[in-house]
Amino acid sequence: MFQNDAFRALDRQECLRLLAKVPVGRVVYTKRALPAVLPVNFSLDTDASVLLCTSPDSDLVRAVDGVVVAFEADEFDAATRSGWSVVVTGRAAVVTDPAEHERLRQAGPAPWRPLRHAVFVRIESEVVTGRDLGGTPGTP
Amino acid sequence: MFQNDAFRALDRQECLRLLAKVPVGRVVYTKRALPAVLPVNFSLDTDASVLLCTSPDSDLVRAVDGVVVAFEADEFDAATRSGWSVVVTGRAAVVTDPAEHERLRQAGPAPWRPLRHAVFVRIESEVVTGRDLGGTPGTP
Repeated sequence: MFQNDAFRALDRQECLRLLAKVPVGRVVYTKRALPAVLPVNFSLDTDASVLLCTSPDSDLVRAVDGVVVAFEADEFDAATRSGWSVVVTGRAAVVTDPAEHERLRQAGPAPWRPLRHAVFVRIESEVVTGRDLGGTPGTP
Repeated sequence: MFQNDAFRALDRQECLRLLAKVPVGRVVYTKRALPAVLPVNFSLDTDASVLLCTSPDSDLVRAVDGVVVAFEADEFDAATRSGWSVVVTGRAAVVTDPAEHERLRQAGPAPWRPLRHAVFVRIESEVVTGRDLGGTPGTP
């Protein structure tokens, strides 16, 4: 269990550097008043917001557009009990600006599988927290 | 993005078999009305509930005791775009029965780091869902 005050808190810059290392994270939201979680591939935008690419008619888009969500990514090595975890909390919104959509089609994340129509979802990195869970090589 | 109907749904037995392969998952809950997520090591009990071991005065215990939470575990290979994800949704509760606590001290999950006092949290596997995200060796 990683809920332990002995773990070192990571600052925002360390968190963003670690997030940039991994291709997959998890969106945490509420679905029919119950906690829900969905793995996603993602990329970080230049303003440190988290970018997802999905189908415009997906359940996820309906559930998260305009609401505050959490986004988590991590890496662990169970053998050495080391690793890190980073959580971004912020408002999620579908990118509706055509120019911005076009920019992300070039430079944003690709869908995990090809999609006929794709939308981008941006999660603002309003609060970024992270913990070093015990001396992983990925942390300073 | 894994929100895609093309992904094969996994049945409960497949989900539990995959869960048993990995040491770390993520508890998804609500904290001060916001979505929250915390990585945890865990084990599966004989009745397929998810068992965590943590400090009795942890924020997590205060947040999840007696409420419905989600628990997610996954494995991915970004290079081959394959993997799986399993989500257990159910009521979480601290194990208070002394005999049950003692049984879990012998057979339950160990804390990630040594704890002076530990409690076990059980998440009932009321709803178990999973998806094969593209032909991982871990799935049949």
